[in-house]
Amino acid sequence: MSFGISARKFVAFLAYPTLKTYAKPIKYFCASAVGIGVIYCKTSNVNMAWKFSDDDIDFSKFMAEPVTDLAHLKENKSDMKTKVELMILRIQAEFCRALKNEEEGGSDFIVDRWKRNEGGGGISCVLQNGKVFEKAGVNISVVKGVLPPPAIAQMKARGKNVKEGDVVKFFAAGVSSVVHPRNPHVPTIHFNYRYFETETQNGQKEWWFGGGTDLTPYYLNEEDAKHFHGVLKKACDKHSEEYYPTYKEWCDRYFFISHRNECRGIGGIFFDDLDNPNPNKVLRFITSCAEAVIPSYIPLVQKHKHSSYTDAQRDWQLLRRGRYVEFNLIYDRGTKFGLYTPGARYESILMSLPLYAKWEYMHNPPENSEEAKLIAVLKHPKNWV
Amino acid sequence: MSFGISARKFVAFLAYPTLKTYAKPIKYFCASAVGIGVIYCKTSNVNMAWKFSDDDIDFSKFMAEPVTDLAHLKENKSDMKTKVELMILRIQAEFCRALKNEEEGGSDFIVDRWKRNEGGGGISCVLQNGKVFEKAGVNISVVKGVLPPPAIAQMKARGKNVKEGDVVKFFAAGVSSVVHPRNPHVPTIHFNYRYFETETQNGQKEWWFGGGTDLTPYYLNEEDAKHFHGVLKKACDKHSEEYYPTYKEWCDRYFFISHRNECRGIGGIFFDDLDNPNPNKVLRFITSCAEAVIPSYIPLVQKHKHSSYTDAQRDWQLLRRGRYVEFNLIYDRGTKFGLYTPGARYESILMSLPLYAKWEYMHNPPENSEEAKLIAVLKHPKNWV
Repeated sequence: MSFGISARKFVAFLAYPTLKTYAKPIKYFCASAVGIGVIYCKTSNVNMAWKFSDDDIDFSKFMAEPVTDLAHLKENKSDMKTKVELMILRIQAEFCRALKNEEEGGSDFIVDRWKRNEGGGGISCVLQNGKVFEKAGVNISVVKGVLPPPAIAQMKARGKNVKEGDVVKFFAAGVSSVVHPRNPHVPTIHFNYRYFETETQNGQKEWWFGGGTDLTPYYLNEEDAKHFHGVLKKACDKHSEEYYPTYKEWCDRYFFISHRNECRGIGGIFFDDLDNPNPNKVLRFITSCAEAVIPSYIPLVQKHKHSSYTDAQRDWQLLRRGRYVEFNLIYDRGTKFGLYTPGARYESILMSLPLYAKWEYMHNPPENSEEAKLIAVLKHPKNWV
Repeated sequence: MSFGISARKFVAFLAYPTLKTYAKPIKYFCASAVGIGVIYCKTSNVNMAWKFSDDDIDFSKFMAEPVTDLAHLKENKSDMKTKVELMILRIQAEFCRALKNEEEGGSDFIVDRWKRNEGGGGISCVLQNGKVFEKAGVNISVVKGVLPPPAIAQMKARGKNVKEGDVVKFFAAGVSSVVHPRNPHVPTIHFNYRYFETETQNGQKEWWFGGGTDLTPYYLNEEDAKHFHGVLKKACDKHSEEYYPTYKEWCDRYFFISHRNECRGIGGIFFDDLDNPNPNKVLRFITSCAEAVIPSYIPLVQKHKHSSYTDAQRDWQLLRRGRYVEFNLIYDRGTKFGLYTPGARYESILMSLPLYAKWEYMHNPPENSEEAKLIAVLKHPKNWV
């Protein structure tokens, strides 16, 4: 077992009873399965690396072997599906390494490469109970197959031309991450960049990209908010000056907990159904956004990870995490789409949930408190840049 | 402020900014509003009592004044709506008292009587951070108005004859409770008994009852399971020997977390759409079920509340509470119906959520452990009686 999978992880795969019906553990005999070269896998989770003697795609530094057969990727380099898979593999690895660097010798990522019986699979990287990060998940998934009616319903709401009763073939690939830090002064970040292709029974094909990055602080720090939004705006502006204002507003609208009449956090950017002017241009935009995650967030981690905090502040953080759970389980389309897709790996979908959350009846921060200041901004989103 | 409402509660009502858009605090000038006698309210939350010099309905011992005007209740004693409201008020008070008795001088219930702008209101009783109960909520609500499309959709799934686009007048009254004890050896109980009336635009009227009681242990104790199911079976058998087996199976089917392929707990009884043979007979059945809650549950609290437990057992309890949150927010029709009903009081709906919950990636109890034994039964529900 020297293919970058720890004994612990392997046992978890075999032992977890439900998993069998959802996703089967990957066979770790990559060389023979791929047949395009010798594969070297290190045992360290983060620095797993494959080298291909006759290959000009650089797979080194990915968290695990790509989901799609290496031979297939190699033969279809100009296919958008390949481009997206390679981009999300790189983003995943870069973000995992950036988080790991902040841990200062604390926890490392568990890397689970999983296969979906119905087609495709994913790589889930989760760091749990770290010094700095209580729970951080960075997942990629590359799945394909046929969409069931409940998943189509989630897609219909996105304005796609899918009729009830249609059988829809789909391809979906994306990177998705949520980071819940231990210190209440370090905000939670979430980002997700994804690509879809669908084909209906009558052969009608569609493609689109979606995604976003948003911040959920427990205490409002205006400087942080300006920095975060500023980096996102810069990434957007390179492609179109219309993007940031439109997608900032979309983000405030999307991450909204309607029963509480408040936003989940202080927003960022969010968009869906992006299908013009052409796939390559949109991929370049998406890539800029994904590359902006580290510069938008890591400075905030560095700035606050050693700040002192009280039990009451920790308690407030847990209450806000309860709201995060409410949003993700009640409203988030991504979570619903995931849970309604047969063969979806629920452990990867639900890695977005915090390690701990709290619900207190009628909790109400005192007027003019730091907690009340946050609530005020969640009820009335501001423009930060 | 001597009407049984604490200053804390009153301020919470006024200060909670969101609340204003959902439900307005009740006016505590009952005497003039009701006009049928002098009202005496004690300041003790639990023993609040009204006495009506010229009234033959016994309101003493209710947690608060009924939701519906006393004069209206008095004039419509034979209306099923009145009978249901009085039954749920009594059940609420009896269960609150039974829980309070187990607290041994620990916490008491906060009693919030609230009014819904769109019609009706409720009484929420919540005990938080107690010695024995970490969080216990016992709510009643009596609401009426017009159903919006998302709530109709929840109702349609129940098999009711409601067409899309219909405007439906409704009346709904129910008692609902969830108790999350501190000790992992004491199971969580949930029960809910409710009555609906609807009237479509073309004047078609329907009525039905629904409800159930179910148990969610953290550790499986077969004796407890037999006792709990035995008491429920006895309550059902008085009305029809078909009820218990049918509703036991329905319960296992309903409280099912499909993405995890496991039941939420060890079940109990559950039913919906009960509309025969006639309202009075069904009310008698529902009343028997609701009266069975105390004898089914309180003995288990008494048996285990002083048992010792380890940090690891507490941790397991929090993980299972995470599953409870998943079920309630993703699948529970009651929660969805509540959150989609305009003017619903989300604080009362979400009182079902535990004080603390935990989500650990790929948590997997060791083979043959007590934790694994529980999972086995959640995956393959058993017959206990």
